[in-house]
Amino acid sequence: MRSPVIDNLQYVNWSEIAFRQLRQGGVDAIHVTIAYHESFRGAVLNVSQWNRWFEQYPDLIMRGVSGDCVRKAIETNRTAVFFGFQNPSPIEDDIGLIEVWHQLGVRFMQLTYNNQSLLATGCYEDDDTGLTRFGRQAVDEMNRVGMVVDMSHSGDRSTLEAIEHSSRPIAITHANPKWWHSALRNKSDEVLCALTDAGGMLGFSMYPHHLKDGSDCTLDSFCDMIAEAASRYGADNLGIGSDLCQDQPDSVVTWMRNGRWSKQMDYGEGSAAQAGFPTQPDWFTDNRDMPNIGTGLLKAGFSQPEVDGIMGGNWLRFYDSSFGGET
Amino acid sequence: MRSPVIDNLQYVNWSEIAFRQLRQGGVDAIHVTIAYHESFRGAVLNVSQWNRWFEQYPDLIMRGVSGDCVRKAIETNRTAVFFGFQNPSPIEDDIGLIEVWHQLGVRFMQLTYNNQSLLATGCYEDDDTGLTRFGRQAVDEMNRVGMVVDMSHSGDRSTLEAIEHSSRPIAITHANPKWWHSALRNKSDEVLCALTDAGGMLGFSMYPHHLKDGSDCTLDSFCDMIAEAASRYGADNLGIGSDLCQDQPDSVVTWMRNGRWSKQMDYGEGSAAQAGFPTQPDWFTDNRDMPNIGTGLLKAGFSQPEVDGIMGGNWLRFYDSSFGGET
Repeated sequence: MRSPVIDNLQYVNWSEIAFRQLRQGGVDAIHVTIAYHESFRGAVLNVSQWNRWFEQYPDLIMRGVSGDCVRKAIETNRTAVFFGFQNPSPIEDDIGLIEVWHQLGVRFMQLTYNNQSLLATGCYEDDDTGLTRFGRQAVDEMNRVGMVVDMSHSGDRSTLEAIEHSSRPIAITHANPKWWHSALRNKSDEVLCALTDAGGMLGFSMYPHHLKDGSDCTLDSFCDMIAEAASRYGADNLGIGSDLCQDQPDSVVTWMRNGRWSKQMDYGEGSAAQAGFPTQPDWFTDNRDMPNIGTGLLKAGFSQPEVDGIMGGNWLRFYDSSFGGET
Repeated sequence: MRSPVIDNLQYVNWSEIAFRQLRQGGVDAIHVTIAYHESFRGAVLNVSQWNRWFEQYPDLIMRGVSGDCVRKAIETNRTAVFFGFQNPSPIEDDIGLIEVWHQLGVRFMQLTYNNQSLLATGCYEDDDTGLTRFGRQAVDEMNRVGMVVDMSHSGDRSTLEAIEHSSRPIAITHANPKWWHSALRNKSDEVLCALTDAGGMLGFSMYPHHLKDGSDCTLDSFCDMIAEAASRYGADNLGIGSDLCQDQPDSVVTWMRNGRWSKQMDYGEGSAAQAGFPTQPDWFTDNRDMPNIGTGLLKAGFSQPEVDGIMGGNWLRFYDSSFGGET
């Protein structure tokens, strides 16, 4: 089998065109967000939508629940689609829903999305009080059933406590190092060391607010950053988590930032002057551009096996050990 | 592998004692009711309860989703537990929830429970108008994903239309022939001929209101009825669906009969004088009595292979062809 290409975070406005772009870009697997602020019932509606897409486009996509689904996708020229939540809202206040969601195919759940949640503290809060009582039990239950703890939008203390408390490696599916671009959503060297020391994975984001020079970030700069990250954390715990938000109306980023919790307009990483989705860098506008990243990594000095790992091999290894029940 | 023992309908008040009785009675698989009138969310709570039992009693029970789970249960000395609904209330008005429930392990769904539903007409209504518009689409979707249509509590016309409309064999999981005991819930010869001619399965009930002479019904009478049914419909489409409602408080039968829909007391098959659960016949009071049925069938003149089929082999064959996606 050839080495897999995996993008471990996308939030595209899905369509037949976008599914075909996945195939054109040679993307074997993606982790897609199916909830930002949805209740349990609301997120189930999103599962139903994906079920219809799996039924309608069986030649392009397939349900992904284990590493073997990636292998089957490669064999059958399709893209395996794995589900994740950016917020624990779909489990509401019910620890029993973690296993229910695992049964429905959810394999990643962020403990927080910017704000304080029932489980932990988001990176936009003034004070981070770490994992809550429910949060510690939720991490235990996620460990038991095989759902990955994702701390992409969490505060530092919560992230460090999740790494410490979790019996299995966790992930930061979509963020970049703060030492490259000091955004609120990017991660400190301390957090990234702790994450990767514990076997956790970092997915590099291509969302402009996470990039040095934003939409003008160059592919060279992005790949040189990955080379520096590999020298600090090793190349084996790195992958792609592009955060591609393609073809979405700006009403969606307003939903992502404000949910139902805010009566004021929260601009998140944007501003009143730049309220909508930012423009993607020209070297990654949709999934057809995925091969550019591999080319850029080779140019940045990585060996072919290292490139294969970062482009998907590392995520596949992580999938194999993360999605089954605790043994 | 020895021949399986399967009871295709139980609604026991489950406990460790009841799970141990399954093992003591040599019951390899059961289909359990996880909803009478529950909403989607309410039935999910019942899945969570079963998930906890699977976690707590891994040496006694296991989740059942396919025929191979029965084989695994036999190999590992456990009972495989399959889920079903007695009412389509958990899909609410959303056809997408059929596949979601299949993902959560539900393998049988009654289109009605005594009353008119969104899908079909129950056996207690004055007029049976057959499958509704939603009902026809729901049957198609159940056929597609591999969820069995169960018409145990439906009216005759609805049942005949479901048999006709369904592309896959359906089931009457728990009822007896009207020619043996003329109860509202028992089934006409016409229905049973149509059911079995189309490859469908009948599960014989041991709920006293479905038995000739009620709680005083003898094992001989019950097994002679099965012999007569085999002569009319063939022995291959017959099995057990005991409807065992063990250790339940009478408040449960009130819930089964009245749900949230009735302000008056509906006594269902009972009466004001006999409002609670009826007493089980002494030859089938809990799962430890299951071997009595096989003994009775042999005495009634069945061959050992026929007994093996009725005691579980027929249900296993039906599981193998019914629970996967349409091919």
